[in-house]
Amino acid sequence: MTEACDLSAVEARQMIGNKQLSPVELLESCLTRIEKTNGAINAVVAMDVDTAKTEAKAAEDAVMAGEDLGLLHGLPVGIKDLDATAGLRTTWGSLIYENHVPDEDGDMVGNVRAAGANILGKTNTPEFGAGANTTNKVYGPTGNPFDPVKTCAGSSGGSAAALAAGMVPLATGSDYGGSLRTPAAFCGITGYRPSPGLVPATGRPVSLNPFAVLGPMGRTVADTYLLLLAQLDSDKRDPFSSDDGLRMPESLSGVDLGSVRVALSADLGCAPVDNAISATFKARAEAFGGVFAEAYERNPDLTDVHECFEILRGVNFVGAHRERLEKHRDLLGPNVIDNTERGMAYSLPDVAWAHNVQTKIYYEFDRFFEDADILICPAASVSPFPHSQLFIEEINGEAMPTYMRWLAITYGLTMALPAACVLPCGLDHQGMPFGIQIVGPNGSDELVLQVAQSLEQVLAQHPDTRRPTPDLSRL
Amino acid sequence: MTEACDLSAVEARQMIGNKQLSPVELLESCLTRIEKTNGAINAVVAMDVDTAKTEAKAAEDAVMAGEDLGLLHGLPVGIKDLDATAGLRTTWGSLIYENHVPDEDGDMVGNVRAAGANILGKTNTPEFGAGANTTNKVYGPTGNPFDPVKTCAGSSGGSAAALAAGMVPLATGSDYGGSLRTPAAFCGITGYRPSPGLVPATGRPVSLNPFAVLGPMGRTVADTYLLLLAQLDSDKRDPFSSDDGLRMPESLSGVDLGSVRVALSADLGCAPVDNAISATFKARAEAFGGVFAEAYERNPDLTDVHECFEILRGVNFVGAHRERLEKHRDLLGPNVIDNTERGMAYSLPDVAWAHNVQTKIYYEFDRFFEDADILICPAASVSPFPHSQLFIEEINGEAMPTYMRWLAITYGLTMALPAACVLPCGLDHQGMPFGIQIVGPNGSDELVLQVAQSLEQVLAQHPDTRRPTPDLSRL
Repeated sequence: MTEACDLSAVEARQMIGNKQLSPVELLESCLTRIEKTNGAINAVVAMDVDTAKTEAKAAEDAVMAGEDLGLLHGLPVGIKDLDATAGLRTTWGSLIYENHVPDEDGDMVGNVRAAGANILGKTNTPEFGAGANTTNKVYGPTGNPFDPVKTCAGSSGGSAAALAAGMVPLATGSDYGGSLRTPAAFCGITGYRPSPGLVPATGRPVSLNPFAVLGPMGRTVADTYLLLLAQLDSDKRDPFSSDDGLRMPESLSGVDLGSVRVALSADLGCAPVDNAISATFKARAEAFGGVFAEAYERNPDLTDVHECFEILRGVNFVGAHRERLEKHRDLLGPNVIDNTERGMAYSLPDVAWAHNVQTKIYYEFDRFFEDADILICPAASVSPFPHSQLFIEEINGEAMPTYMRWLAITYGLTMALPAACVLPCGLDHQGMPFGIQIVGPNGSDELVLQVAQSLEQVLAQHPDTRRPTPDLSRL
Repeated sequence: MTEACDLSAVEARQMIGNKQLSPVELLESCLTRIEKTNGAINAVVAMDVDTAKTEAKAAEDAVMAGEDLGLLHGLPVGIKDLDATAGLRTTWGSLIYENHVPDEDGDMVGNVRAAGANILGKTNTPEFGAGANTTNKVYGPTGNPFDPVKTCAGSSGGSAAALAAGMVPLATGSDYGGSLRTPAAFCGITGYRPSPGLVPATGRPVSLNPFAVLGPMGRTVADTYLLLLAQLDSDKRDPFSSDDGLRMPESLSGVDLGSVRVALSADLGCAPVDNAISATFKARAEAFGGVFAEAYERNPDLTDVHECFEILRGVNFVGAHRERLEKHRDLLGPNVIDNTERGMAYSLPDVAWAHNVQTKIYYEFDRFFEDADILICPAASVSPFPHSQLFIEEINGEAMPTYMRWLAITYGLTMALPAACVLPCGLDHQGMPFGIQIVGPNGSDELVLQVAQSLEQVLAQHPDTRRPTPDLSRL
């Protein structure tokens, strides 16, 4: 019999609404799973168990009283430690905020709570989300439930690991260069990077930078979508926000994949990808490609994307951390220091050039989809590696020019402001989770999610392509 | 009896639809007005009269055949010479494009044409829209119909002057630091600066810069709104675009001003404003203020806006013109050269700082409207001055630190990404047109336009506050 904590969020919510599963039971199951596995993984880094139990009891009472229940009623949710949670320690993975307890929820968190979620805990993240390996000076490293010696990637690593291990049915993430997508890929779960503004990002130090978005993570597409619905809002404090998200459907019914034209790209034309990963991608694409109207190889035009990404990221880092660098350098980790200092060396003409490139990439990406409905590519360039290794220094024997270059398979797309859903697709050559990205242009969220929903069902039919589950007894 | 070219666009369109006015007659009337007045004003700088006549005849035939007619059917429209018009010379006010004839309309122009407009001609603009005095090396200066020795401001000067002189019933404009609002104020007409993305701006070299927007201009609010409806679209090639604009009402019914809370600001707390203009603003505000629920003095917080504006404008100029500066310096005018070179001297940290300031201004502006529905301020800081004078060097005896500073009354608001409508409000102390801005936060377009519509009717009741008309017999 399935443990309550291993139920899908959709199923758990249905059972709660039908009085078949108590929020108290569900919470207990999650807490037990956390107790058994978090020691080895270190995904959940702050919890207020007493408050969670009180909330669960209140949720149960509401069900028994026949009250109207929110979308996420009674579901324990993990919140990435980059978002403020009222009364629950929020550190941003930084010693500067080691003991910080916010008075108020961040806006997205408030929406999730208002939808009835039981905010159970904070999930680990590198300091200020900088880096694709989840470790920091406050809480240490987070491991991969499939092999705790290996990384869960980052920066939404804690959320991904918590989901894969069944600690929570839903968790939030955020994504700039791949921070939600790479962990989803490494941990065999689903993560959704929405179009800018769909989930309003308020409180950004550079509000006109749309590259950093908030998004949902879950074990399945339907679960991920459930959390997305709770995160959707219309809030002009994010200048990219509009009413568009308010018109998303209440659930995903899927689409006829036989009518969908797919472009397949093993490396986006510009991303270094491990040969074995490429081979796995090509084999998987061959396995499922036949369900589509067409599935042919084509790369988007991402010329100059690496330098473009670095420079605009520099604007963001300097805008976010320059003061911290001046006042708290001794407390900061190497990623934040390095990224901010490198940003400070660029000129305005560099920034203008990067904007020209980003604009061109964005236009070319729009044109790309005149001849395809969806782009599918790998979600990560390498197999999960030991978390003691800070980053990937070489791929296929070639040295990586920067420590971000192994993430080009995700950050290359970021510059095009896509809607991108990661689907788990079996295991790679090392027996670790392997994921693919289902991608569309800005504003194509509904199509991307519907395709992901339908493709997930196709992938589930075969052991080689279905979502893998970790052997938690090893932990 | 009113000349056809002096009819409002709304009235002319109604008469066309009721077979009371032929598009051919209307065009003839406009052409006659252009013939009589354009020599002195130089507002319309390119025309294809033969094509316009052919279009007018086709429009007449469609009416007589009982066909469905578009929003702007048979209305002659002037297009600012910064937007490409198929088959009609488009120069951007630059010798580089002196003889350029585009094959295709720009996207907004295509929408206006598809709505049935007869695109009669191009209206003058400073080179690449740089500057608030409409003059360039291709076509020379444009004068103010109220006094042709004086400037019509810029950069949408030709459109404003053409409207004031009755040459066309509608004209397009664009606005970064005030390029649509200042000319509207100086020429006694209405201009509307929409929220970013409402009228999608495609083809910008820096697509993530929302400060430059396209918008409508007309002699009345209803006319301006008619053109806006034709310009609205949902087009993600502008990343700020959404479906929001598609849900604007078909016409403006106005609002009860007695329910509207107004904040009055004579200088936004940061803009230099000529004492006589301030006095005029205060007198006018006193005259009409009583119609509102409340009308009290309050300034938005625009701390550091001047430097913020300069730096981010630098990103835009370098992004748009650096290559031109390298290849065609000899052909460029002083404004473009100077703005681009000054931009090139800044650093990435300067840009990041400017973004932090803009973000803060944007957030503060959102909060400002918790205690007011609308902000009203002057639309220009000085009375229209001779167009031989390139810019304003001093206000109230104080030297202006930059040649843009006299435009802070408009560019200060730009950084807050507002919806802003200019309403003519009588004459100033020099007997030249005086205008006010009706302003709301990003996304408040419907409210701003409804308030402008209703306030226009209030202002029309008194000779001191109603829209002035020029004495064209002097030209």
